[in-house]
Amino acid sequence: MDLATLKQKILSVEECMKQYVENRIQSQRLKDSMQYSLEGKGKRIRPLLCLAMVDLFDYPITTDVIQVAAAIEMIHTYSLIHDDLPAMDDDDLRRGRLTNHKQFDEATAILAGDALLTDAFYLLSEVDLSAEKKVSLIGLLAKASGGQGMVAGQMKDIEAEHQKVDLESLEEIHLLKTGALITDALVSGLIIAQQLNFLNIVQDMGYHLGLAFQIRDDILDVVATTEEIGKTPHRDEALGKSTYPELLGLSGAYDALDKELNASLQDLQFLSEKDSSALKEIIDSLRLVKGV
Amino acid sequence: MDLATLKQKILSVEECMKQYVENRIQSQRLKDSMQYSLEGKGKRIRPLLCLAMVDLFDYPITTDVIQVAAAIEMIHTYSLIHDDLPAMDDDDLRRGRLTNHKQFDEATAILAGDALLTDAFYLLSEVDLSAEKKVSLIGLLAKASGGQGMVAGQMKDIEAEHQKVDLESLEEIHLLKTGALITDALVSGLIIAQQLNFLNIVQDMGYHLGLAFQIRDDILDVVATTEEIGKTPHRDEALGKSTYPELLGLSGAYDALDKELNASLQDLQFLSEKDSSALKEIIDSLRLVKGV
Repeated sequence: MDLATLKQKILSVEECMKQYVENRIQSQRLKDSMQYSLEGKGKRIRPLLCLAMVDLFDYPITTDVIQVAAAIEMIHTYSLIHDDLPAMDDDDLRRGRLTNHKQFDEATAILAGDALLTDAFYLLSEVDLSAEKKVSLIGLLAKASGGQGMVAGQMKDIEAEHQKVDLESLEEIHLLKTGALITDALVSGLIIAQQLNFLNIVQDMGYHLGLAFQIRDDILDVVATTEEIGKTPHRDEALGKSTYPELLGLSGAYDALDKELNASLQDLQFLSEKDSSALKEIIDSLRLVKGV
Repeated sequence: MDLATLKQKILSVEECMKQYVENRIQSQRLKDSMQYSLEGKGKRIRPLLCLAMVDLFDYPITTDVIQVAAAIEMIHTYSLIHDDLPAMDDDDLRRGRLTNHKQFDEATAILAGDALLTDAFYLLSEVDLSAEKKVSLIGLLAKASGGQGMVAGQMKDIEAEHQKVDLESLEEIHLLKTGALITDALVSGLIIAQQLNFLNIVQDMGYHLGLAFQIRDDILDVVATTEEIGKTPHRDEALGKSTYPELLGLSGAYDALDKELNASLQDLQFLSEKDSSALKEIIDSLRLVKGV
């Protein structure tokens, strides 16, 4: 499947999240707030990676695969809502619109995040897969997103503000904050497609892709406009965050991005002999050209 | 098993939560903040109810039962941390100590809550029970605590502040906010002990116990001291919250509490012919004597 066809499937992921919230959530205000953030024009990279991994092994993209991808995007969306809160990164813009707490209020934003987080696990518990697969997917997602992964990364990220951070510590923060959920999306695809013999390679791919993501985000924060990234640029500097461009120079950051993307493409060669795949296209789409 | 013996088992639940956080959480500050709230002298009613239900059917209180009870208390503890935040109920005291965001800061409190919530599901995914039981327990807990339960109740509770609320709406709020997790604790016990033929009766018991809990909390907010309840009294009035004493009068609220506790004891009679059980003792311990 090529990337364009796979992206059509993302419409089903979005519809799945929308229907879930519409049918399940027991408070209209909570529903509105959750839908607002889910509707934001996100890149949907995590569900795309999950679907692309499933497709790589020629396993069909059935409803249960869509639901697993939706649960991962719900977790990602909750993390954006909480990260944007005044007590955290205090952002006004996200995905080209007001952040959730600006559109609603702080209490509603906290609760919308809590519900998206909790209900992602409910959605996974209901998927039409074997109980064994569901427990694996749930355990994997909870490990990637809680105090063993993303939340720990966000805590370390906040602690590191206005501190001198070396490259090793910066990597540790971003592997937890970003890499863990990226890797979860890929490994979830492996679990569904029953290809766990490739676990080590896919974890290595997740490691490199996670770092690539963060380096890319750091570069865009420096060089892109609000329109291009849908959020306020130069926030890292304002918050006193250490970044790859700061530690490596802007040109060095571009090189590091290429290096990580190339490493993930090398992993991909061990997984599949196909010349082209949606997964390869996704990885290549993350490249940035110096000075553009 | 009598209540005193069962309460000894709660020490194992507390140790389980402590060890989990100590061994798993990947940030020292996050760890400290999670431990701080878990160590608070809570009544541990939800894990007690879970263990008491398991024991009612003479099923042994093994490590896996302790872990399930711990996961439920982790969810309850996260909800207290988030409810106390300035954007929510803005409380300074909880379980006789400073609230989490007062002891640490708001960002840390939000993240500690997020981690407790997420890691409760990780803990459940690892319990030594069949995959089918684990999926049931996870689905049940997510339904009780997310946008289909507790979080929706908290949203409705905030929306109802400074509004005239009738008894029916007040019940709806509290069945979501408090009743759902109480019922989850009881039904989790049923799932473990494999007694789901009693589901309807136990759900009814959860309904009555959930209301009893909230009525009791409302009464104590009016009549008790800070020392007695470990948090600042008269907060409902300060926040403009509707309460049972306000709608029924204080004496009427005491009567309503008795009525709900008696109804839950009636349900208990359908479950067991025992004259005494820890579950009966727990229910009786919730009674309040007028004017004391």
